Amino acid sequence: MDRLECLFCARKYLLNVFEIFCPVCHEPMLVSSTPRKRSFALDRSLSLEKYQSFLPLAHVDKTLSLGEGDTPLVPLERVSRRHHLPPLYAKNETVNPTQSFKDRGTAVAVQKAVALGIKSIGTVSTGNMAGSTAAYGAKAGLTTIVLLKEDMPSAKIRAAGIYGPILVKVRGDYGELFAASLEIGRKQGIYFMNSIDPLRIEGYKVTGYEIFRQLGGRVPRYLFVPVSSGGHLIGLMRAFLELREEGLAAELPVLVGVQAKGCSPVARAFAGGRTRYSRFRRAETIAHSISNPAPPGGNLVLKLVRENKGLVMAVTDVEILAAQRELAEQEGIFADPASATVLAALIKFSRRQRLGLRDEVVLVITGSGLKSMESMNCQDIQVHQTSLSRLEKTLSLIGA
Amino acid sequence: MDRLECLFCARKYLLNVFEIFCPVCHEPMLVSSTPRKRSFALDRSLSLEKYQSFLPLAHVDKTLSLGEGDTPLVPLERVSRRHHLPPLYAKNETVNPTQSFKDRGTAVAVQKAVALGIKSIGTVSTGNMAGSTAAYGAKAGLTTIVLLKEDMPSAKIRAAGIYGPILVKVRGDYGELFAASLEIGRKQGIYFMNSIDPLRIEGYKVTGYEIFRQLGGRVPRYLFVPVSSGGHLIGLMRAFLELREEGLAAELPVLVGVQAKGCSPVARAFAGGRTRYSRFRRAETIAHSISNPAPPGGNLVLKLVRENKGLVMAVTDVEILAAQRELAEQEGIFADPASATVLAALIKFSRRQRLGLRDEVVLVITGSGLKSMESMNCQDIQVHQTSLSRLEKTLSLIGA
Repeated sequence: MDRLECLFCARKYLLNVFEIFCPVCHEPMLVSSTPRKRSFALDRSLSLEKYQSFLPLAHVDKTLSLGEGDTPLVPLERVSRRHHLPPLYAKNETVNPTQSFKDRGTAVAVQKAVALGIKSIGTVSTGNMAGSTAAYGAKAGLTTIVLLKEDMPSAKIRAAGIYGPILVKVRGDYGELFAASLEIGRKQGIYFMNSIDPLRIEGYKVTGYEIFRQLGGRVPRYLFVPVSSGGHLIGLMRAFLELREEGLAAELPVLVGVQAKGCSPVARAFAGGRTRYSRFRRAETIAHSISNPAPPGGNLVLKLVRENKGLVMAVTDVEILAAQRELAEQEGIFADPASATVLAALIKFSRRQRLGLRDEVVLVITGSGLKSMESMNCQDIQVHQTSLSRLEKTLSLIGA
Repeated sequence: MDRLECLFCARKYLLNVFEIFCPVCHEPMLVSSTPRKRSFALDRSLSLEKYQSFLPLAHVDKTLSLGEGDTPLVPLERVSRRHHLPPLYAKNETVNPTQSFKDRGTAVAVQKAVALGIKSIGTVSTGNMAGSTAAYGAKAGLTTIVLLKEDMPSAKIRAAGIYGPILVKVRGDYGELFAASLEIGRKQGIYFMNSIDPLRIEGYKVTGYEIFRQLGGRVPRYLFVPVSSGGHLIGLMRAFLELREEGLAAELPVLVGVQAKGCSPVARAFAGGRTRYSRFRRAETIAHSISNPAPPGGNLVLKLVRENKGLVMAVTDVEILAAQRELAEQEGIFADPASATVLAALIKFSRRQRLGLRDEVVLVITGSGLKSMESMNCQDIQVHQTSLSRLEKTLSLIGA
């Protein structure tokens, strides 16, 4: 029997996909973890099957999978050399079925929805989550409702709309929409698997297990991850806490949550030594997919990071754009601005804290630049022009 | 010592990356294959290492990899049921580092370029290949030249430009540009790894080996793949021929090459029983990335398909758009129009040829719909509008 727990008051409840906040503390609850001789089943084909013993899934239905996970851990030797850094890796989550880390969470939540006989799912999204939820909902034959902010760009709407969900643009505050979706979901039996959903967070744990395995059974010294709602960082932290609990790893990585300075409620609270964040006023950053002025998991991130020697940082849009360019030009990875934050933060961090030669660092790249092409207007791309007859001369002049 | 061979005249030559057409027949040459007790090394982490004994690579340099390959083979049970088809799978090549199958070919060609001490690479591209070559060139620290058609949409240019290649728009005919690039490459020492490059084709073989392994050591009965230059189909065919040569498989799959009717020089030649295609006049199709009026591998495709009981088909833009929609709505896969052709072709094929219950079918999905958002203007996406206060009512009215 799966249970949810609130880490603030330690109360436990039976898992109910319609109730994700602790009724007493109003903080997000997590799936309760009981140490019980868990292990990896690496001979299985799906990522959910490989790490199933760490997940609240009694059974993995293969027909619901789009092949999420098993993403590459790519050594970034050129960036590491340029900045005199220790061994550095990118966990490239853009190589997921809908090009973002969200697929891992959606995959687990949809498995549970189908197991429970739920027919309608939904999400509130500004981008990546809409596409991911709509894709998995389509694959499972569920009715999928995607609630959109009124100002969502039409390219993003169409990229989610192709999967055939019910798309509804809603006027009004995003935070209120989040709360309203859960309330309506309860009444109408629609499982809204939003950013901070506990089953979604279970899916993000798998990224942590893969990193551990890809490093040859080691925990990295530092793990950088963007922070929006907080769910991704919480999932990664839970993964490593559980590895330690099971005796598979002796240490935890230092988790570094990263926000864009233009919308950094959690980083600001962390810097101020506070245990609770305040809503961020006048949010403005190029990193749209992590621009979340009132992240529902913000306080839980602060708690987990403080208790486990992690930290939360902020980086500017200028630093983000430079990091996006560097990841592409030096390492061939086209990250969206939200995920470029992690390289920007590492560079900043390494200037104020000496990193040891053996301090392995992993950057989690959460989403593809292809889904944030609007940010490319801020990147200067030079294009030469010539004719067929002058091509040879042009190329020698350019010094190709 | 690697050799190239011309399948038309059976002549062999030493591998030279600057000479890819047979000097006598003017047809593309392929890497010569010698049966020699090859096998899979599935415990290795990179796809190139797993299938290295089938590739012309003495050594795989891990620092050049972006984690290409190892893509999922996804069962399409819903589409199969709708059309009363046998077991059906999508080999989802959009889950590659730059979201297309091109990465597999680029990965092999760049390994060879670096091994040979080549410092500059290039490509002629209308889209996916530009991004793939620029990304791998960046990762390897090579100078990368991307020659573009004059009318290439700016979003595609920027998606390749982020990796920092030298971008040159060239006025003039695309076929002539292809030829000119090879000539200039020879003179200036730039390895133009274009669509029909023999090392690129070696990379596409790996997809075939993965399908074989993912089906549990079986060959599918049918394998559908889009045909543009022809390189992809040629690579897949070589993979299965070599599996048979090695005694690992007894049969070949029926390879079905698919073109868009609006630009179908190879399908037309096949239907007419000809061994050579003629240039296609007035090409016009929504499947831009396979709109190739004079495919350099066209005659080789015709030869391989005829000798091995394959076929080449064409499908209309209307059929392509319906298939794109169906793949997304039923199976959660957002394919570009070029790769949606394979489902359109299968549906057509199954109406005129009875498929047995055990005739497994694999569709190769080559590129992501995210890179062809312009085609989305042809897909009708409905968006509801409401306010926060009316949301609950709206959802019950829609029947969510």
